[in-house]
Amino acid sequence: MAPCASLLLPVFVILATLPIIQSVPTFFPRPSYDQSLAKQPKASKPKIPYKTHYFPQVLDHFTFQPKSSKIFYQKYLVNSNYWHRGAPIFVYTGNEGDIEWFAANTGFLLDIAPKFRALLVFIEHRFYGESMPFGNNSYKSAETLGYLNSQQALADFALLIRSLKHNLSSEASPVVVFGGSYGGSRLKIPSQLLMLNGYGGTAVLIFLSPVKLVSFFLVFNEKVFSSLSLSVLAAWFRLKYPHIAIGALASSAPILQFDDITPWSSFYDAVSQDFKEASLNCYEVIKGSWEELEALSAQKEGLAELSRTFRACQDLHSLDSVWEWLWSAFVYTAMVNYPTDANFMMPLPAYPVQAMCKIIDGFPSGASKITRVFAAASLYYNYSRAEKCFKLEHGPDAHGLHGWDWQACTEMVMPMTCSEESMFPTSSFSYKEFAEDCMRTFGVKPRPHWITTEFGGKRIELVLKRSGGNIIFSNGMQDPWSRGGVLKNISSSIIALVTEKGAHHVDFRSATKDDPEWLKELRRQEVEIIQGWINQYYPDLKRTNKE
Amino acid sequence: MAPCASLLLPVFVILATLPIIQSVPTFFPRPSYDQSLAKQPKASKPKIPYKTHYFPQVLDHFTFQPKSSKIFYQKYLVNSNYWHRGAPIFVYTGNEGDIEWFAANTGFLLDIAPKFRALLVFIEHRFYGESMPFGNNSYKSAETLGYLNSQQALADFALLIRSLKHNLSSEASPVVVFGGSYGGSRLKIPSQLLMLNGYGGTAVLIFLSPVKLVSFFLVFNEKVFSSLSLSVLAAWFRLKYPHIAIGALASSAPILQFDDITPWSSFYDAVSQDFKEASLNCYEVIKGSWEELEALSAQKEGLAELSRTFRACQDLHSLDSVWEWLWSAFVYTAMVNYPTDANFMMPLPAYPVQAMCKIIDGFPSGASKITRVFAAASLYYNYSRAEKCFKLEHGPDAHGLHGWDWQACTEMVMPMTCSEESMFPTSSFSYKEFAEDCMRTFGVKPRPHWITTEFGGKRIELVLKRSGGNIIFSNGMQDPWSRGGVLKNISSSIIALVTEKGAHHVDFRSATKDDPEWLKELRRQEVEIIQGWINQYYPDLKRTNKE
Repeated sequence: MAPCASLLLPVFVILATLPIIQSVPTFFPRPSYDQSLAKQPKASKPKIPYKTHYFPQVLDHFTFQPKSSKIFYQKYLVNSNYWHRGAPIFVYTGNEGDIEWFAANTGFLLDIAPKFRALLVFIEHRFYGESMPFGNNSYKSAETLGYLNSQQALADFALLIRSLKHNLSSEASPVVVFGGSYGGSRLKIPSQLLMLNGYGGTAVLIFLSPVKLVSFFLVFNEKVFSSLSLSVLAAWFRLKYPHIAIGALASSAPILQFDDITPWSSFYDAVSQDFKEASLNCYEVIKGSWEELEALSAQKEGLAELSRTFRACQDLHSLDSVWEWLWSAFVYTAMVNYPTDANFMMPLPAYPVQAMCKIIDGFPSGASKITRVFAAASLYYNYSRAEKCFKLEHGPDAHGLHGWDWQACTEMVMPMTCSEESMFPTSSFSYKEFAEDCMRTFGVKPRPHWITTEFGGKRIELVLKRSGGNIIFSNGMQDPWSRGGVLKNISSSIIALVTEKGAHHVDFRSATKDDPEWLKELRRQEVEIIQGWINQYYPDLKRTNKE
Repeated sequence: MAPCASLLLPVFVILATLPIIQSVPTFFPRPSYDQSLAKQPKASKPKIPYKTHYFPQVLDHFTFQPKSSKIFYQKYLVNSNYWHRGAPIFVYTGNEGDIEWFAANTGFLLDIAPKFRALLVFIEHRFYGESMPFGNNSYKSAETLGYLNSQQALADFALLIRSLKHNLSSEASPVVVFGGSYGGSRLKIPSQLLMLNGYGGTAVLIFLSPVKLVSFFLVFNEKVFSSLSLSVLAAWFRLKYPHIAIGALASSAPILQFDDITPWSSFYDAVSQDFKEASLNCYEVIKGSWEELEALSAQKEGLAELSRTFRACQDLHSLDSVWEWLWSAFVYTAMVNYPTDANFMMPLPAYPVQAMCKIIDGFPSGASKITRVFAAASLYYNYSRAEKCFKLEHGPDAHGLHGWDWQACTEMVMPMTCSEESMFPTSSFSYKEFAEDCMRTFGVKPRPHWITTEFGGKRIELVLKRSGGNIIFSNGMQDPWSRGGVLKNISSSIIALVTEKGAHHVDFRSATKDDPEWLKELRRQEVEIIQGWINQYYPDLKRTNKE
């Protein structure tokens, strides 16, 4: 992956000539995927008020073989500006990516730390960022990747937290864990394509008529999850390690997205609903665009025309990349349909779904669906107007396989389909085909029912009513992941906070002056509940110490 | 290990000539350890009303390496005489031994099954009985033994139970787990000696003056645990897998025996208290006997005299075996100080501690302490009067290393010492020496704080007050393991049932006509509480299904 220093320089933008929606930039240079993934974020890493540490972590907590006692260095960040011995410790249970990016995008913790006088700790997840158990060889094979899974990660957190408290001589400090997912900077389009290439050298997109995708989902969905599903770790940590954390705030945690707990079509139905609510016409245009695209690409010179329409930096070789490009734009925009301007995955205006639909609806009646969806997607890819052309096709990622691909092929199996109701082409999911793909790619067989065996999820209200406690599940209904979340209170201390207008862990973002009242209220409730746990904890502790 | 068919034949006994206590047999043939461990139990296996099944189990639940997806066959027993679809399933979470023996000695479940119309399932623990992941090579090295630990065992239970319910089309059946430890037939004196031999070929008993033992404990204690500590599994299972089991009855589960939660001297202090309560003189005789033994053995011909006094089948080569022989007798007798005749570890009369003390106190005043303690221990080893001589010294166990030795050297580290108050020689415990011994024996380093990191235990009231639920911890105060148990109610559904006169999971034994009222009442309470869980469960389920 070549560096691209030019990205850091200001770029003069040329406004495109699309009619009506003058504010929509469509034809500006966009960082290549490589750049946006690796170089740009690295170069533009925000300064964060945390000190970096490394913890000697046990490679394998669950076998006791001589080789599994191997140690690796797990990165974690600490802010102790507000803390004193005995005060609470707030731990962010890192997910699939560089922990610094999570820290930079979880301003909520910095906002509330002074009130609680809390120590803030962000722990990097093994096999991501710098926390590579086998250095550059960590992703080499199933032999090394085998140690990348959620149970090992939770045990890492437990061991690290306990050791940290011991070293701080503050073993009685209450720990609250926070989990949300970051994701934006880790959007894995390149590895998505790598997977396509990786699958035996043949593209696995299978077009059926009427447009049906099967394997596409096997691959594509993994990438979407890749950035966004590990917010479940905080909830699981509280459930499995209640002796280490007195409570958990799990924001947008799709802990019910496994097995058959949540209907498989719910995710894409929810994306579609966001668009339908913004505008029925918008939804219908997107829904109709796939066939239009397919028909055009089947024509002679169709791909050449698509290359021009989509401002492709290089001529397109197949329709697949256009589909993925559009698909990602719609899915991620639904997820980050925030009420304020934000730069989470991409810089975007407030309520970007509505903005996209405004673009689509704003075209004159004769405009093709293709033109409209391209303009809409450009909002996502080019709101900052930095892109001159779009790199829709890519070679293999120099990084090699990405960790989530592995996790999705082992334990994190979340089947998804598109129903007739969705704005996407209908699709089905087959465990068998999925397993075959995983076997080809990694030589490993998925365990699709393992997560619900290990962590539960089925009839969760019934189970957690008589066990567990002190968990907040917050979900914004704009976020399609909310459909796999806990949306109803389970007990007096397992609370669901649901906001109609909320998107993917909007509560974890730094407060801004433009935040709407419902968002302020959501955060206020979270702080109040956490304060309640802590107010219970200290007297409990006092009583225990007396006995 | 050679078969010993003669054991199955009736043996005519010759009464010994000990004065006064005519009923105490002391000089009858006793099966060699080999025989008592392997052949006698096998040959005399009681008929139990269970069908045997084998479940294809995953070797390693927590890594996803191609080799860890290896399958082994886990044995489990099922009794469906009283069950119908949808009714409760009672699962015994097997511990360190042949599951048939646990089934035979947990009559309580058979007694209560009709009332609940419960399916009874006894699952064998991996690496014990027939459930050997690597067949005869299972105990070969740390490479294979690495998969023997409690987390893997709990995950086995989870997977098996879920699969079983699925296969029975009874996924909504409530599951209650039961854990007690069996132990008797698995008393591992031979491997105890093997460990002594195994430790670099030199005996690790270190006699200090005043008599102090260090390494002896490292070895000896592991053997005691070997039979008796895995009853913790049921409690841990409910804590970690509340979605699989709606409740747990953990009888005599020393879940607080780890790290520094319970004073290290409490176990042997409790043994001593049992004897002191029976008779102060008895306690003092035993307490004084160790020095008397040491002094005698230091004399010329001392060992020869000891060989005669202790009716050793072969001349003794060191004092160690006499010590262990006595030590075991006192410890196990305290544990099984049952209110009725029982044949748990050995056939014994009701309240055997009191019976032992009666023997000690019954000697004429001039009798040596050595004679007295020998007579007392003979009650334990020879109540059935089948022994002509006692095999106090043994060669290595043909079985090879026993599983618990491995578990004690990895995660199940329970430090124990003997205080000045105990009737045993004072002793200390050193993590360092313990770790060195384990490294020498298995090439593995213990993780002494791992269990409390993984399962908790410290400030347990504080933790389980706000999480967890539906656990009964039953303990009998005669049982020295009770000191590491939960002895106070933690919440309205985490209940401690404590009986002053109870011994090691006496509640799990079949009801007999001689059971005292307090024991009947204990079982009645257990049944009532379990009934309460089930009475809550079905309406909860109905509500959930309706939603």
